[in-house]
Amino acid sequence: MQFELQKALPVLERTPQVVESLLYGLPDEWIHNNEGGDTWTPFEIVAHLIHGEKTDWIPRAQVILGEGNKEFVPFDMKGHIKEGKGKTLSQLLDEFKILRKENLAQLQALGPTEEMLDLTGIHPSLGTVTLRHLLASWVVHDLTHIHQLSRVMAKQYSEAVGPWKQFMGVLGGKR
Amino acid sequence: MQFELQKALPVLERTPQVVESLLYGLPDEWIHNNEGGDTWTPFEIVAHLIHGEKTDWIPRAQVILGEGNKEFVPFDMKGHIKEGKGKTLSQLLDEFKILRKENLAQLQALGPTEEMLDLTGIHPSLGTVTLRHLLASWVVHDLTHIHQLSRVMAKQYSEAVGPWKQFMGVLGGKR
Repeated sequence: MQFELQKALPVLERTPQVVESLLYGLPDEWIHNNEGGDTWTPFEIVAHLIHGEKTDWIPRAQVILGEGNKEFVPFDMKGHIKEGKGKTLSQLLDEFKILRKENLAQLQALGPTEEMLDLTGIHPSLGTVTLRHLLASWVVHDLTHIHQLSRVMAKQYSEAVGPWKQFMGVLGGKR
Repeated sequence: MQFELQKALPVLERTPQVVESLLYGLPDEWIHNNEGGDTWTPFEIVAHLIHGEKTDWIPRAQVILGEGNKEFVPFDMKGHIKEGKGKTLSQLLDEFKILRKENLAQLQALGPTEEMLDLTGIHPSLGTVTLRHLLASWVVHDLTHIHQLSRVMAKQYSEAVGPWKQFMGVLGGKR
C-alpha cells in the first residue's frame, strides 16, 4: 500500500479513541503492570504517545518543510516520564486526544502536496528520510503501540489462561 | 495477575468499541488487505470474533456448568467465512457488539462463584480446562485479535515507512 494522506489521516484520527476504549476506567493492574524489567506499562505508553505529539511528528514535518537546518532533534525515549508525572490515566487520555486533534489540524493546514511529501529531513540515526516516510511512520507508530498495549495486557493473564497459552498468538502461541 | 471476573469483565465489554474505533469507516485497503497467503484480513478477523461469540466462549461455559457431556464441540477455524458472507464491515461490527452484550449478560446471569470457576470441561485438543481458564482465554483471545489487527494494518505500510521500519516493533523492528 502506497502512502496517501487521505488514507492515513483516518487512522491517525482514530488512535486516541482506540486507546481510550482499550484503557479508560480499567482496574489499576491492567494500567500499571508491565512486561517485566524496564518495559513500559500501558500508562507509560500513553505518556510516550503524548511526548511524540509534542516533539516528534509535527515538529519534524515542520523541519522538513521549513527553511532552516534539516536535522531533526533526537527523540527522547525517556520523555514519557515527565509527561506522566503526577497525572492520572484519564488526564493523559484527554491530553493525547487534544494534542492529536491540534496536530492533525496543523498537518491539514500544511496541506502537503505530492512534491512536498518528497522533501527530506535528516534523522539522527536513520539519515535522510522523506516527509512521506515520516507520516507513514506516524501511522505505524500508533499501530505499534496498540500492538504493544494489547500484548502488555495479555501477558498479565499468561498463567491464568492455563493450557490455552499455546493457542494465543499474543502470548507467543501458534494462532 | 490472577483471574478475577470483576477485572476481566471490563476488558471483554470494551472490545467491540476498540475494534469499531480501529476499523469503522476506514478506506477498503485497510479492511480487506491481509498479511499475505491465507492470513486473515481485518474483515475476516471481525467475522471470526463473531463466530467465537456464537460457538465458543459462552456455549463452552454452559457445557462446563451444565449437567451433560463435558466435551466441547471443536471450534471451526473457518467459521468466519460464512459469518462474513454478503455482509459489510459495519454490519459485522454491529453484530459483534450485540452478541458480546448478550453473552456478557448471560455470563453475569450464570454468576460464576469461585467454586464454579474451578469446574472443568474437556477441550478437543487441550484436554481438561477450568471455567477460569476459559474466561481468561476469552479476554486474551480478544487481545490476540487486537494485536493481530494492528499488525495486519501496520504491514500495509511496511515499505511506506522507508528506513523507519527498523524502529517499528510491529514490523519486527527493535522498538
